[in-house]
Amino acid sequence: MASDGIVERTLGELARLVGGELQGDSELRLSGVAGLEEAQINQISFIVGPKYVRKAHESKAGALIVPPKLRDINKPVIITDNPYLAFAKILSLFVPKPRPPLGVSSKAHIGAEVKLGDSVSIQPNVYLGDSAVLGDRVALHGNVYVGSEVCIGHDTILYPNVTILDRCIIGNRVTIHSGTVVGSDGFGFARDGSSYFKIPQVGIVQIDDDVEIGANCTIDRATMGKTWIQRGAKIDNLVQIAHNVVVGEDSIIIGQVGISGSTKVGKNVILAGQVGVADNLEIGDNVRVGAQSGIHRSIPPGQTVVGSPAVADRDFWRNVHIISRLPEMRKKLKDMEKRLTALESAPDTGLKE
Amino acid sequence: MASDGIVERTLGELARLVGGELQGDSELRLSGVAGLEEAQINQISFIVGPKYVRKAHESKAGALIVPPKLRDINKPVIITDNPYLAFAKILSLFVPKPRPPLGVSSKAHIGAEVKLGDSVSIQPNVYLGDSAVLGDRVALHGNVYVGSEVCIGHDTILYPNVTILDRCIIGNRVTIHSGTVVGSDGFGFARDGSSYFKIPQVGIVQIDDDVEIGANCTIDRATMGKTWIQRGAKIDNLVQIAHNVVVGEDSIIIGQVGISGSTKVGKNVILAGQVGVADNLEIGDNVRVGAQSGIHRSIPPGQTVVGSPAVADRDFWRNVHIISRLPEMRKKLKDMEKRLTALESAPDTGLKE
Amino acid sequence: MASDGIVERTLGELARLVGGELQGDSELRLSGVAGLEEAQINQISFIVGPKYVRKAHESKAGALIVPPKLRDINKPVIITDNPYLAFAKILSLFVPKPRPPLGVSSKAHIGAEVKLGDSVSIQPNVYLGDSAVLGDRVALHGNVYVGSEVCIGHDTILYPNVTILDRCIIGNRVTIHSGTVVGSDGFGFARDGSSYFKIPQVGIVQIDDDVEIGANCTIDRATMGKTWIQRGAKIDNLVQIAHNVVVGEDSIIIGQVGISGSTKVGKNVILAGQVGVADNLEIGDNVRVGAQSGIHRSIPPGQTVVGSPAVADRDFWRNVHIISRLPEMRKKLKDMEKRLTALESAPDTGLKE
Repeated sequence: MASDGIVERTLGELARLVGGELQGDSELRLSGVAGLEEAQINQISFIVGPKYVRKAHESKAGALIVPPKLRDINKPVIITDNPYLAFAKILSLFVPKPRPPLGVSSKAHIGAEVKLGDSVSIQPNVYLGDSAVLGDRVALHGNVYVGSEVCIGHDTILYPNVTILDRCIIGNRVTIHSGTVVGSDGFGFARDGSSYFKIPQVGIVQIDDDVEIGANCTIDRATMGKTWIQRGAKIDNLVQIAHNVVVGEDSIIIGQVGISGSTKVGKNVILAGQVGVADNLEIGDNVRVGAQSGIHRSIPPGQTVVGSPAVADRDFWRNVHIISRLPEMRKKLKDMEKRLTALESAPDTGLKE
Repeated sequence: MASDGIVERTLGELARLVGGELQGDSELRLSGVAGLEEAQINQISFIVGPKYVRKAHESKAGALIVPPKLRDINKPVIITDNPYLAFAKILSLFVPKPRPPLGVSSKAHIGAEVKLGDSVSIQPNVYLGDSAVLGDRVALHGNVYVGSEVCIGHDTILYPNVTILDRCIIGNRVTIHSGTVVGSDGFGFARDGSSYFKIPQVGIVQIDDDVEIGANCTIDRATMGKTWIQRGAKIDNLVQIAHNVVVGEDSIIIGQVGISGSTKVGKNVILAGQVGVADNLEIGDNVRVGAQSGIHRSIPPGQTVVGSPAVADRDFWRNVHIISRLPEMRKKLKDMEKRLTALESAPDTGLKE
Repeated sequence: MASDGIVERTLGELARLVGGELQGDSELRLSGVAGLEEAQINQISFIVGPKYVRKAHESKAGALIVPPKLRDINKPVIITDNPYLAFAKILSLFVPKPRPPLGVSSKAHIGAEVKLGDSVSIQPNVYLGDSAVLGDRVALHGNVYVGSEVCIGHDTILYPNVTILDRCIIGNRVTIHSGTVVGSDGFGFARDGSSYFKIPQVGIVQIDDDVEIGANCTIDRATMGKTWIQRGAKIDNLVQIAHNVVVGEDSIIIGQVGISGSTKVGKNVILAGQVGVADNLEIGDNVRVGAQSGIHRSIPPGQTVVGSPAVADRDFWRNVHIISRLPEMRKKLKDMEKRLTALESAPDTGLKE
C-alpha cells in the first residue's frame, strides 16, 4: 500500500498471480491497469495480437502483459498464453468490487421468519418476503424485491431494482443486475371459447452457482417444475427466458436473445445477440448461433448456425453471396434465352414448326 | 380438505368442474396435478395427443384428462375436447394463486385524496400518487409505483416493481408482471434545425378488463388520446407498445415484439416472438405473424405472414427452399451457357458472323 | 388565463411563438391543441400534407397550423414550413409537463455527503447514494435509485424506478424514463479453462446534455473509461447499449435496438427498430439503418443500409424483388434446358456424338 492509499504491487507479484513468465524488473512497482493509450508509467497494460505492437511500443505503460510470440517488446513484460485473462485478474486485484455496508437498513422491509446469514447487506427500500433465506455475505442493494420463501446462497449480489419472486432458488456467487425479474409467470393460456383461460404457473426458477445475469432480463417461472439456469452460465441484458427452459453450464447468452418455452440449451453454447429460439427444442452442447438468427428446429451438438431460419454458417454466407449475384444471373438468363430463340429460328435447325 | 391441510377432490368433482365425461371411479380422491412423468398415484395428469399414449400408460398418475379419441387408457379418465383447458382449470383449483395480506403497509407512500376499494393490499415501498383510485381487492405488491390520478379496477394485480404513470386507466382483473412500465412518454420529436424538439406526450394508456401483461414491457402513453390494450389481450415479456397503438381483443403478443406508433392490431391476432411492426399500419383480425417477421405494410384480416419483409407464409417457405437450391441453379446456368455456345459455334447453325 | 383556470392564448400570440405567418383573426382565443377529428371550436389543430385537406375542412378546429402550400383553407391559419414543430411548441405551451412537488421526502434514503441543488424534488422511496451530486431543479420520482458519487446536472428528470449506478455522470436537461438502468456491468468474461473469469467493469457511463432515454433500456458501464451518450441523442424503449459504446450527437435510436461493445455511432445517425450492431464497428455520421437490420461491418458516413446482413437499401429492395421472382426464373431455366436439349438432338446441329 502506497502512502496515499493506492494499492501498489510489484511486477513479480503480478506475474505470480497470473501464473505468467516475468521478463524484466520483478521489483517494478505498479498501481493500476489501463488501455495502451491511457496507461501511465505506474500502470500495466496488455496486448493480445500483433496488430497492437506499434501502439504497445508507443504506450507510456510501465509494463505489459503479452502472449509468448510478442515477448520482444521494449518494456518489462509478463508472458502468458491468455493475456486477456491475466489482465482481468490483475484488474480485479487493483479495483476490487465495492460492496454495500454490512447490516440491515431500518428502511428495508424484513418479512416474518426470514433467515439471514453472516455479514449480509440489506439496503434501504429492500423488500424481503416472509420465510426468505439469505446465505452469508449476500448483498441486496437498494429497492430490491425478494419474495416469500426465496432461498439465496452465499456471496450472491442482487443489484438495485432486481425482483426475485416467491419460492425461487438462487445459488452461491450469483450476480444479478438491475431491473431483472426472476420468477414472473410463464406465458401460458388455454383457449376457452373465444377468449383465454390462464394456465397457473406454479413452478419456480432455479439459478445455480456462479451464474451472472445482466440488466432488465426476464426469467419466467415454470408452469410446473422449474426453469433452470445451470452453473456458470452468463446472460447479458434484456434477455427473455421462458417457462421451463434449461440453460446449460457455462453457456453464453448475449443481449436481447429470446428462448421460448421448454427449450433445452446445452453446455458451452453461445447464442449471439437478438437470437430467437422456438419452443420445445434441444440446442446441443457447444452449439454456436450467429446474431439475429431464428432457430425453429433442434440443433445437434457442435454445430454453428446462422440466419432466420438458421442454416449451417457456410450455407448462410454462400446464400448471402449468391443472392448478391442474382441480378447478374437473371440478366444472363434473359440473354441466353435470346440466343436460344435465335438458334431455334436459324434456318438449319430443323426445329421450326 | 385432507387432515394434513392438502386439498383433496374426487375425480367426479373434477369432471364436473371441467364439464368432462367421467370414465372410472368417481370417488377416487386426488390432491394435485403433475406432468406424466412426475405424477404420483394421488395426482391427475393429462395428454393432448397420441404421441404421449405410451408415456401415459407408464405414468404413475392416478387419473388422466384425455381427448375423446384417447379414451382407451388403463386408468380412470376425464374425457374432454380440450384437455389442456381442463388441466388449467384443475391446476387452478389445487394451487390457488397466493395473494398478499390485506391492508395498507405503513411503509407505503399513500398520496392525498386517494380512493381505496374494499380489501385492497398495499405492500411496503409502494408509491401511490395523489387522487389515485383503486377498486376492490386490488393488490399492489412491494415497490410498485402508481402515479397521480391513475384509476385501477377491481381484482387487478400489479407485481413488484411495476410502474403505472399519471392518469393511466387500468380495468378489472388485469395482471401486470414485474418491471413493466405503463404510461412512459411516446417517442416523438420534431426536427428543429440541427437538433430535436420534444413533442409533449399528453395522452394516456388505457388497459381494458382481463388483460395480462408480462415482465419488463413498455407501453407508452399516447401523444394525444390513448394507447389502448383491449379486453382479454395477452402480452408476453419485454414487449414494446408505442404511443397511440391499439391492440385488439384477445390478441396474443409474444415476447420481445415491438409495435410502432399509431398501428392498430385487430382482434384475435397472434404476433410471434421478436416480430417488429412499423408505424401507422392496420393488422386485421385473426392475422398470424411468424416469429422475427418485419411488417412494413398493413395486413388484411385472416392472413398468415412470415419473413422480414413479411410475405404470405407459403411464399416465405417456398423462398427459403428455392434459395437453398440457388447454387445448383447457378451451376446449371453456367453449364447451359457452355452448351449454348457450343451450339452457336456448330458448323450448320447459320448463326456465325 | 380564462376564469375556469384553463390557459387561453390568442392566435396572434401562437403565431409569434412559432414564428409563423398569421392569416385570419389575430384575436381569436384558443385554449388547446387536438387532432383534426377531435378538435373543438376553441382548439387549434394541424396538417402536414395534402392528404389531410378534406379532414381539415371537416374539422371543428377553430384554427389550423399549415404548410405554405396548404394556406387556402376555410379557417384562420398559422403558416409555417414545419407545422409539426409548431404543433409541438404550442402543445408544450398549453399542456406544461407536471413536475413533482419540491423538497425531499422523509421516505427517501439520502446518503452521506450528498450535494443538492436548489429546488430539487426527491420523492418517496428514492435511494440517493453517498456523495451524490444533484443540480438545480433535478426531479427524482418515486422508487428511483441513484448510486454513490453519481453526478446529475440541472433540470434533469429521472422517472420512477430508474436505476443509476455508482459514479455515472448525467448532464443537464436529461430525461430518463422508468425502468431504465444506467451503469450496469458490461458483459465481459475471459475464458479460464472450461469456465469464465469476470472482467471487472470499472468504467462509467456519461450522458451529455439534452439526451432523452426511454423506458427499460440498459446502458452498461465501460470496462475502463466510459460508455458515452452524446448531446441531444434520443433513445427509445428497451434499447441495449453495451460497454464502451459511443452514441453521437442528435442520433436517434429506435426501440429494441442493440449496440455491441466498443462500437462508435456517429452524429445524426438513425437506427430503426430492432436493429442489431456488432462490436467494435464505426457507424459514420448521418447513416440511416432500416428496421431489423444486422450490421456486421463499419458503415461510411451518409449511407442508408437495410437487411441482415445489411446492404445498401437499393440493393436490399432489389434482392427482395428478385427473390420473389425466383420461382419464375427456375421454371424458365428448366424450360430453356428442354429447348436446349431439343436443339442439341436436332439432326443438323452437328453436335451428336
